[in-house]
Amino acid sequence: MSIQPILVAGQWRAAKASGTFHAENPATGEKLPDEFPISTWADCDVALAAAAEAAIILRTTTPEQIVKFLTRFAERIEARKSELVEIAHAETALPKSPRLADVELPRTTGRLRQAAAATLEGSWAMPTIDTKLNIRSMLAPLGPAWVLGPNNFPFAFNSVAGGDFAAAIAAGNPVIAKANTSHPGTSRLLAEEAFAAVTETGLPPATVQLIYRTSHADGERLAADSRTGALAYTGSRSAGLKLKAAADKAGRPIYLELSSVNPVLILPGALAERGAKVAEEFTGSCLMGTGQFCTSPSLIVLFAGEATERFIAAAKQKLEATPPTPLLSSGVQRSLDESVKTLRAAGAELVCGGSPLPAPGFRFANTLLRVSGEKFLAAPEKLQTEAFGNASLLVVVRDAAQAAEVFNRLEGNLTGCVYSDTRGSDDALYGQLAPLLRNRVGRLLNDKMPTGVAVSPAMNHGGPFPATGHPGFTAVGIPASLRRFGMLQCFDNVRPHRLPVALRNKNPNGKMWRLIDGQWLQADIAG
Amino acid sequence: MSIQPILVAGQWRAAKASGTFHAENPATGEKLPDEFPISTWADCDVALAAAAEAAIILRTTTPEQIVKFLTRFAERIEARKSELVEIAHAETALPKSPRLADVELPRTTGRLRQAAAATLEGSWAMPTIDTKLNIRSMLAPLGPAWVLGPNNFPFAFNSVAGGDFAAAIAAGNPVIAKANTSHPGTSRLLAEEAFAAVTETGLPPATVQLIYRTSHADGERLAADSRTGALAYTGSRSAGLKLKAAADKAGRPIYLELSSVNPVLILPGALAERGAKVAEEFTGSCLMGTGQFCTSPSLIVLFAGEATERFIAAAKQKLEATPPTPLLSSGVQRSLDESVKTLRAAGAELVCGGSPLPAPGFRFANTLLRVSGEKFLAAPEKLQTEAFGNASLLVVVRDAAQAAEVFNRLEGNLTGCVYSDTRGSDDALYGQLAPLLRNRVGRLLNDKMPTGVAVSPAMNHGGPFPATGHPGFTAVGIPASLRRFGMLQCFDNVRPHRLPVALRNKNPNGKMWRLIDGQWLQADIAG
Repeated sequence: MSIQPILVAGQWRAAKASGTFHAENPATGEKLPDEFPISTWADCDVALAAAAEAAIILRTTTPEQIVKFLTRFAERIEARKSELVEIAHAETALPKSPRLADVELPRTTGRLRQAAAATLEGSWAMPTIDTKLNIRSMLAPLGPAWVLGPNNFPFAFNSVAGGDFAAAIAAGNPVIAKANTSHPGTSRLLAEEAFAAVTETGLPPATVQLIYRTSHADGERLAADSRTGALAYTGSRSAGLKLKAAADKAGRPIYLELSSVNPVLILPGALAERGAKVAEEFTGSCLMGTGQFCTSPSLIVLFAGEATERFIAAAKQKLEATPPTPLLSSGVQRSLDESVKTLRAAGAELVCGGSPLPAPGFRFANTLLRVSGEKFLAAPEKLQTEAFGNASLLVVVRDAAQAAEVFNRLEGNLTGCVYSDTRGSDDALYGQLAPLLRNRVGRLLNDKMPTGVAVSPAMNHGGPFPATGHPGFTAVGIPASLRRFGMLQCFDNVRPHRLPVALRNKNPNGKMWRLIDGQWLQADIAG
Repeated sequence: MSIQPILVAGQWRAAKASGTFHAENPATGEKLPDEFPISTWADCDVALAAAAEAAIILRTTTPEQIVKFLTRFAERIEARKSELVEIAHAETALPKSPRLADVELPRTTGRLRQAAAATLEGSWAMPTIDTKLNIRSMLAPLGPAWVLGPNNFPFAFNSVAGGDFAAAIAAGNPVIAKANTSHPGTSRLLAEEAFAAVTETGLPPATVQLIYRTSHADGERLAADSRTGALAYTGSRSAGLKLKAAADKAGRPIYLELSSVNPVLILPGALAERGAKVAEEFTGSCLMGTGQFCTSPSLIVLFAGEATERFIAAAKQKLEATPPTPLLSSGVQRSLDESVKTLRAAGAELVCGGSPLPAPGFRFANTLLRVSGEKFLAAPEKLQTEAFGNASLLVVVRDAAQAAEVFNRLEGNLTGCVYSDTRGSDDALYGQLAPLLRNRVGRLLNDKMPTGVAVSPAMNHGGPFPATGHPGFTAVGIPASLRRFGMLQCFDNVRPHRLPVALRNKNPNGKMWRLIDGQWLQADIAG
C-alpha cells in the first residue's frame, strides 16, 4: 500500500519522508492498514512558505469569505459523517454512538459555525477607538498557526477541524495542522473536506495544510521559525515543554494545554446529604471516555470518616462493576501504568484496579487509589502525577487545616470543583477552602463534575501553569479563544480611507461591538 | 554615609546586601552621595513571602480601597514634587522643566488616577456571563508582580509609580519593585510616598515593596519562583532575554519591552511637499530625551534622489547646530558608542557625529548615519542594532521593490510611521509598502513622529518580538494594560452568593460593562 500524501501548498503530494507509521486499533491492538509519512524539514519548509503567502492574502480577505469557508466545511463534515465516524472509531475505539456521531461531531460542526458567526460579527477583535486623539486599535491576524491537537477528541480537538483550528481560521490565519499520530486517518478525511471547502470558497489554497508527523528536532525548528505566527499544542507535558522552550526562545506565542488532575473537594455536608449520588456522578465522570478527558476528575479530596468510607466503597463497587473500555493507544496504556506505579511508589494505596488488562486491545482496569492527607503532603509533586486514563486518586484529609495545606501544594489545573450541602452546613468550610482552590484553577465548579466543557463565551478551558502556558487565555469559548491568534494593531492618526473597515467611523455591519471613548457601542461614530 | 534601607514586608529595613552601588550624575559624571544595597536572595525571599500574603488579602479588598490608595499616592507625589524633580534631575540629567516637572510627573499622577478610575469602574476585567448555562468569568488578580522599570523615564515608567506599577496594582496585585539602578534615589522617594499611602489607606503593608538591585542569578530565581505571579520588564535586550528564559521555563507570565528601531518611511511626495518640515519633525523627535525614548525614530527609509539629499543636509545641519544633551548614564554612552561602531562596521556611513564627547558628563555627538538599501540588505540584522540615544540611521533605497525588501527583513518594532503627501500622489506606494510595515509594528502612524505615546484606551505600546515578548499586549493604555496582570477565572454553576460581585446578576456599580449573552451591557440581569 502506498504512503498517504500530505496536504501542502494547495496540493496533496508525496511527503519527503524520513519514515512512516501506522495508527493502531485500540480495541484490537492491531495495526491499521494505512501508512503515513514522517515528514522531514523539507515538508515543513514548503508548508511554512505557502502559509506565509496565504497569510498575506487572508489579511485582506473579507470576513464573509472566511464565514463561507467555515460554513461549507461544517456542511461537508456532516455530509461525510458516517465515513468519519467509522474511521475515528477504528482509530480511537471511542463509541460510535452516542459519543462520536451524536456528541462530538455535532459539537465540532457547531463550533465551526459559532466561529463563523464570530468572524461575521467582528467583535472578537475588540475594536477600540479614541475619537478625540484619533487613535484606533484592534486585534488583527497574527500569521500562520501550527495546530497540534491531542489524541482524545478525534473531531472536536482535531488539528484540522477542532477548537484551535476554528479559532485560528476565524481570526484570519492559515493553519498548518500536525495530525495527532493516533488518528491520522480521521485527520486526513477532515483535511480533505477542509481543502475542498477552501477551493470551493476561493480562499488561498494554503489556508489549510496537513502533515502527519515530524521529528522532535523539526518540531522545535518549526516553533522557532520566523514565518510561524503562533502555535497551539495540546498533549503530553514533556513534549509540550520542549516545544514551548523552542517557541519562547524565538518569541513566538504558543498556547499549550499540558496536564491537569482537576481537583474535586467533597465537603462533609454534601456526603451526608447525597453521598451516593455524588459517588455516581464521580464514577460517571471519571470513566467518561475511559477517563481520557482533559478535565477528568483525578484528585478527590474528602474528609476522613464513615461517610467517606461509604463513598469509597460505593465508588469501588461501581468501578469494578463497569467493564473497562479501551484506551486510545498502547502509549496511553503504558503511560497510565507508569503513572499508577508512580502514585503507588509515592504512598497511594490501591482501592481497586491498578493493572493493564490482557489483549485484545489496550485496556486498563478501572482504578481507584487512596492516600492520607499526611502522606500526600509528604510527596505532593509525585502524588499530582497525571494518570491520564481511567484512574483517580482520593486524598483523605484529617481536617480543614490539612485540606488547606493540600490545596496550597496544588499545581495549576484546568478545573476545580466543590460539592457542598444545599442547606448551608458546608458554607464555613467552603469559605475557608474554595479561595485556595480558586487561584489554582481556570474554572471553579459547584456541585458538578468538570467533564462537560460547554462552548460558551464565558467558558475558561485554561488555567495556571502547568495546566496551560498562560492563565489569561482560554482554548474553548468564543470569542475569547480567537483572541489568542490576534496581534494588537494600533492606528495613530492614520487617514480614514486607510483604516481597516472595523475602525472607520461607520460600524461596518451595525452589529460589531466597539469600545468607543470608553463605551461599548454598536453605533456609528458621528461625523 | 549609611546604606539606604530597602522596603520589604511593610518595613524600611537594612538589606542583606552582597555589595553596594551609587547612582551617577550624568551631567557631571560624578558619583552621587547615596549608597544603595545590592540585595541577596534573602531579601527577595522575604519580599516574595510578604507579597504572597498581601496578594491573598488584596483579592478580597474592595475596588474602592485600591482607588483610595492610587489617588492618595498621586496626591503625595504632587505634594513632594519639587524634591522629586530635583533628585530625578540629579540622577538622569533630564531637564527639570518642562520635561520632569511639567510633563512626566503630571503624566505619572494622571495615569495613577486613570488606573484608579478603571479599578472603580471594573470593566477592565471583562466580566462575561452566559445566563442560560450559568457560566460566568472575569479576569482576577494574577498574584505578586515584579516590576523592573527602565532608565529613561524616572517617573512615568518607574518601577514603583509608572505604567506597569499602576496597572498591576489597579488589577489587584501587590508589586515588588526593583528600582532601575540609574535612579535609585528617585525610586526611594516614590516608594516612601507609595508606602505612606498604603499605610494611610489600610492596604496590606506589603502591597508595595522596593529593592534596588540583585545579582543576575537571583533575578532569574525570582522570575521562576512559584510565588511570583507575573513580571514586567523594560530594559536592555540581553538582560531581558535572560529573565524571559527563566520565567518562561517556570511558566510565569512575563511582559517585556526590549528594543525597537521604530522605522519611519518618508515617501517622495511628502518630501516634495514638505521636506523641510518633515526634517524638523524628525530631528525634534530623534533628539527628544537625547534620543532615549523607546519610540525614538532610529531607522528612516527614504527614496534616493535630490529631495532626499536635501532632507539629509537639513537634518545634518539641525543635528550639528543642536548642543547634545547628556545621556542617562555612562552605560548608555558606552553602549551607544558600541552600537554606532556596529552600524559603521556593517556598512553605514557617518553623516555627522559618531563619537562620545569629552567630560564633563556622559554625552555623545548628535549622530546621523546613512546606508544604501543594497548595503542594508547585505547585513539587515546588524543594521537593525538599536543605538539607544541620539543616533539614527537613514536607509536610502533605490525604489519601491527595494523598500519592500527592507521592510520584509525588519524585526518586530513598537512603532512604524509613514509620511505621505496630502494630495494622494503617494497613495500607490503607501498601498504597496504600508501593509509590510503594519505587520511588523504595534502602532502604525501617518504623518507624525512616534515619540508621543498617549495614555489612551486605544494605544498600543507593544509589538511583535523582539520589541516585546507577545504581540497581543500593550504596556500603555487603560484598561488593556491592566489585563496583563489578570488570570481568567470561570465560575461554572457557582451559587449566587459565592460569586464575585462583578459576576452577580446585579451590576455592582451600574457602570461596569459586562458581556452578557453576547451583548456588552451596563444593566443588571433580570431575575
